Amino acid sequence: MVKASIVGATGYVGAELVRLLSQHPQVELVYLSSQSYEGKDIAALYPSLLGTVRKELVALDAEKFAAESDVVFTSLPHGASGEVIPKLYEAGTRVIDMSGDFRYDDVKTYEAWYGVTHARPDLLDVSVYGLPELHREEIRAARLVGNPGCYTTCSILAAAPLLRDGLASRENVIIDAKSGVTGAGAKPSANSHFCEVDESLKAYNVARHRHTSEIEQELTKAAGGEVLVSFTPHLVPIKRGIFATVYLNLAPGVGAEQVRASFEAAYAGEPFVTLMPEGQLPEVKHVTGSNRCAIGFVVDERLHRVVVCAVLDNLLKGAAGQAVQNMNLLFGLPETMGLPTAALCP
Amino acid sequence: MVKASIVGATGYVGAELVRLLSQHPQVELVYLSSQSYEGKDIAALYPSLLGTVRKELVALDAEKFAAESDVVFTSLPHGASGEVIPKLYEAGTRVIDMSGDFRYDDVKTYEAWYGVTHARPDLLDVSVYGLPELHREEIRAARLVGNPGCYTTCSILAAAPLLRDGLASRENVIIDAKSGVTGAGAKPSANSHFCEVDESLKAYNVARHRHTSEIEQELTKAAGGEVLVSFTPHLVPIKRGIFATVYLNLAPGVGAEQVRASFEAAYAGEPFVTLMPEGQLPEVKHVTGSNRCAIGFVVDERLHRVVVCAVLDNLLKGAAGQAVQNMNLLFGLPETMGLPTAALCP
Amino acid sequence: MVKASIVGATGYVGAELVRLLSQHPQVELVYLSSQSYEGKDIAALYPSLLGTVRKELVALDAEKFAAESDVVFTSLPHGASGEVIPKLYEAGTRVIDMSGDFRYDDVKTYEAWYGVTHARPDLLDVSVYGLPELHREEIRAARLVGNPGCYTTCSILAAAPLLRDGLASRENVIIDAKSGVTGAGAKPSANSHFCEVDESLKAYNVARHRHTSEIEQELTKAAGGEVLVSFTPHLVPIKRGIFATVYLNLAPGVGAEQVRASFEAAYAGEPFVTLMPEGQLPEVKHVTGSNRCAIGFVVDERLHRVVVCAVLDNLLKGAAGQAVQNMNLLFGLPETMGLPTAALCP
Amino acid sequence: MVKASIVGATGYVGAELVRLLSQHPQVELVYLSSQSYEGKDIAALYPSLLGTVRKELVALDAEKFAAESDVVFTSLPHGASGEVIPKLYEAGTRVIDMSGDFRYDDVKTYEAWYGVTHARPDLLDVSVYGLPELHREEIRAARLVGNPGCYTTCSILAAAPLLRDGLASRENVIIDAKSGVTGAGAKPSANSHFCEVDESLKAYNVARHRHTSEIEQELTKAAGGEVLVSFTPHLVPIKRGIFATVYLNLAPGVGAEQVRASFEAAYAGEPFVTLMPEGQLPEVKHVTGSNRCAIGFVVDERLHRVVVCAVLDNLLKGAAGQAVQNMNLLFGLPETMGLPTAALCP
Repeated sequence: MVKASIVGATGYVGAELVRLLSQHPQVELVYLSSQSYEGKDIAALYPSLLGTVRKELVALDAEKFAAESDVVFTSLPHGASGEVIPKLYEAGTRVIDMSGDFRYDDVKTYEAWYGVTHARPDLLDVSVYGLPELHREEIRAARLVGNPGCYTTCSILAAAPLLRDGLASRENVIIDAKSGVTGAGAKPSANSHFCEVDESLKAYNVARHRHTSEIEQELTKAAGGEVLVSFTPHLVPIKRGIFATVYLNLAPGVGAEQVRASFEAAYAGEPFVTLMPEGQLPEVKHVTGSNRCAIGFVVDERLHRVVVCAVLDNLLKGAAGQAVQNMNLLFGLPETMGLPTAALCP
Repeated sequence: MVKASIVGATGYVGAELVRLLSQHPQVELVYLSSQSYEGKDIAALYPSLLGTVRKELVALDAEKFAAESDVVFTSLPHGASGEVIPKLYEAGTRVIDMSGDFRYDDVKTYEAWYGVTHARPDLLDVSVYGLPELHREEIRAARLVGNPGCYTTCSILAAAPLLRDGLASRENVIIDAKSGVTGAGAKPSANSHFCEVDESLKAYNVARHRHTSEIEQELTKAAGGEVLVSFTPHLVPIKRGIFATVYLNLAPGVGAEQVRASFEAAYAGEPFVTLMPEGQLPEVKHVTGSNRCAIGFVVDERLHRVVVCAVLDNLLKGAAGQAVQNMNLLFGLPETMGLPTAALCP
Repeated sequence: MVKASIVGATGYVGAELVRLLSQHPQVELVYLSSQSYEGKDIAALYPSLLGTVRKELVALDAEKFAAESDVVFTSLPHGASGEVIPKLYEAGTRVIDMSGDFRYDDVKTYEAWYGVTHARPDLLDVSVYGLPELHREEIRAARLVGNPGCYTTCSILAAAPLLRDGLASRENVIIDAKSGVTGAGAKPSANSHFCEVDESLKAYNVARHRHTSEIEQELTKAAGGEVLVSFTPHLVPIKRGIFATVYLNLAPGVGAEQVRASFEAAYAGEPFVTLMPEGQLPEVKHVTGSNRCAIGFVVDERLHRVVVCAVLDNLLKGAAGQAVQNMNLLFGLPETMGLPTAALCP
Repeated sequence: MVKASIVGATGYVGAELVRLLSQHPQVELVYLSSQSYEGKDIAALYPSLLGTVRKELVALDAEKFAAESDVVFTSLPHGASGEVIPKLYEAGTRVIDMSGDFRYDDVKTYEAWYGVTHARPDLLDVSVYGLPELHREEIRAARLVGNPGCYTTCSILAAAPLLRDGLASRENVIIDAKSGVTGAGAKPSANSHFCEVDESLKAYNVARHRHTSEIEQELTKAAGGEVLVSFTPHLVPIKRGIFATVYLNLAPGVGAEQVRASFEAAYAGEPFVTLMPEGQLPEVKHVTGSNRCAIGFVVDERLHRVVVCAVLDNLLKGAAGQAVQNMNLLFGLPETMGLPTAALCP
């Protein structure tokens, strides 16, 4: 049994981790920490867990957590993990971090996009970007995983194969992304007020969303040459789900067949990436509640461009589910253990 | 032209008043006050008003507002109106108050249900309950109007005729009400967080919602004998709308015909109450964006009980629209002036 | 391994059965039938199942299904099961039927409320009402299960204990119920059109919904005397979920303590019924995606009445989940096997 | 008074026309036609109109309609208007057509994208593209108006100024558009089923949506050179609203100041186009229920690209509202008469 603790268990990602880990056949939950709700039971905050798990929320104690846990999931705001994670890591436990702090190869990129100084850039050398479909072997060997963001997982999985295989131009890459409101977190704000979100749509952080840099890092590596992307996030009135529409100009001579072959080669055998059958495009409902990313595409022959659509559940494949997938890899468990592939639909 | 000011113009009811009054052919907006947004333009906060009205929000100055306005709408939390309203009233302007403070005949009822001491119980003698369908003549003569709540307007209009006409028992009156989220106001909270409300339903303040006392006051007057009601409010994932399902045991011998006749007599000629045609029940979408309350019913012969369904838009007939209707009465304007009867549907 | 087939696999209940059974550790899916989609794969219709199950839909062949299956789930419109189910049953397989056809003790009740003649009233003698919390032992011994409806499961679980224990009056029982749209089925109609449902609420089939008779049958048995109920279904803009608000007049001298004790006694040890902690009421989101029914209550001392609120996911505890629970009982498997207790929340 | 009739009054666009025209101070409604609901009252179908308008639906009689109406609005499927409109037009009345049939300069474009033969290409010479902000003077003089589609109005208003002023490249124009479900019409289908749409997102008709050709026609004229666009429509779970995200590569040397100046020059004095204040982007809720299109933008200096966001209510500025605006122009009425500028918000 893997002994697992969660730092920051009461946000939406934290609670999803509790839900998944409490039902994982090879995991024992050790500590759940919360700053605001210490002493309360997690099931009192999330009655959705009544009948499944009861566990008191405790104050964070990095030494104790590290000593008694094989792995600690940290679900804290970026920067906040500066102090906690090094302590956990240096005490010898494995750490899977949900924030942006350990997702970067180059500290300068992080600092430029986050506007803060990284507390421990040295740890970027040992941390691994936790996207199994691109970095599986590195993850298996890692002790510190930077778990990718929701927008980025969806965007990278949609675009990487075609760029890697040279089927698409590195110029004019446009990613128009739409997100459900859970992505904004559990803290009430005008941005998540029902009456401000419902029956509306908006774009936000246009041309400056931090996930842009993460996408560019991974696509640049995949393409073997600099890829810069226009990334536009939108908020839509759904709870869970990311929908990324990716526009890529095709390389000369490339058609639908090569595009399909590229995706098939990239994701054959991947348990959590589904290439949609020909003629079908993915919809958010195809993945809600599952750990899958579903991908489809249309080649526009008239404009020699491909439009790739990809969807995932931002709390699962875009956060907690992917973290559990990474944990499975870290401990040599079957990669799919404890992770749903079927979506709750309708 | 009626010179109108609004105290508390940036909440949902306040903003709806701005929208209605800025398009009212006989109204000139004088002052809009806001504690939090002084100096900003109302259209910067509500870009829905861009192209319609631009007006700077100012600090509240009761003397100035009263001196320069024919009517002041106060949209403040209950109790908060204790000081402001007496000042406005005593300075001679007319006041239409959105809070519960001036809706009661008996200060003891107010104090019991609100758990506070009323600052100026003497003003209850001059204030009028602003439900035109029941108190039209008193309103015309009033200078201080307690504008009814959304749940109450809907519940009272649904139940009063049958009780007044002796067609229904005063015992076992059950009102099961459902409200949209705008009823909870513009302030972000866990209760109005999109992800907490969407795809869910809940009951709240069961057996202790303050509107119960308002409903009981008016139904008791209508029935000519004490009416106590089980009132259960529910929150549903819509923005606007109240749906009240009222269960009344019929008096011996009463059938569908008398019930229909009672409603027809009560609301013949009422511009803002629609009795649904036979066989049709009202739905929230029939009134969204309009100032109408729509009412339908089913007589259950098997159980000798009537189920009355009533709907209204809580920001219009349940708040700002009704306030404008009251203003029209106060100033001898056509009662429907500036008020929509058609709903925005779909 | 239990060999299971589904007749009518492409409706919402059928597809939910496929999802649950395909992941059940002790079930092998044998046949999935569909009239409209014969020859297609279930995952082509429900891409939510891609990566989980692929199975061709076939035409119904009762003999073959019966011969090769230990249990057949029938998800057909009421009446339609008249011919199929007798064949399946008489061929010796076990049958769990989703329709109303085999839920009644007295054929007259069925015929009065459904307005049709029952094809095989004799089978009502051997069929069992599949609500495990009330009829567990009968179910274990049954070969034909009438799986209860969604409204009824929720209403009965909310009201039965207090009536059985004599804590509530059998008079004036009011059940005000709210349902998500999946309850109306997968077939497109004006009633399920997004623009007709979204941002609206309506009541329907008031005083004549068929589930009334099922609720009355079970509550009458529980109470040991006739219980007639006003049952009012409402449609709300959510996909999954039933919320029942039940009004019961308390017997003389009964207070909150006895009410709590009654519920605790009734549901102690029940894996799929949760009594909410004191001071908390259930919300639909507490059960979405789980097989649980959650119950809470408020005693209104002023009116000597109790308001019981109960929620469940209509496709799980209100249909497919309960059917799997029944199957587990039929085959001596652990009752919770393959059934989620945690809700997907948010 | 302008005498107006509507052919096809019971679809969503038709009903919105009824709502607007019945409240228009200079319009008298003459005939409302319906194929399916002849003999019924429009308010029986749309109880949202109860208290506002009652009018019997009649069978279409082109001669009679033309003879007794100053203007006829035709809201029929494309192609279907082939026969009716010529009759109306030739009988001398003015026609405002909601379909795609009379929006094209070149019949070949229409036939290529619609896959049908145009019945009366000769009438394209006299018909005018009814986008007042681009073709106001032509509209004033017209007798046959092809009222633009919802996606197109939004996209063209967002992109035309920058292309006309040479600030943006004609290459790599990407329009990622999101639509509410009313755009799909009132007819129930799997695409508009609540449970298929709610909590989901999808793209559809990628690279082949007909509105692409309309957008290209108008942007090509504006730019003075061929503009081809990737246009990707998405369906989002809201009732009303279009959100268009337009990606344009900026011409060398162009920055935010010139972009703003271009929009300001284009839309100064336009009553129904709002340029958002600096730093603000439009959201659907800013325009729901109004006839306005709101536009904002972000210049991405890093990539030398501008992202323009535009929103409108598809039933108003995207259909019925724009049609009334066109009618006002045809008859020399104030352009804003009978048309709301304020949105219903929240």
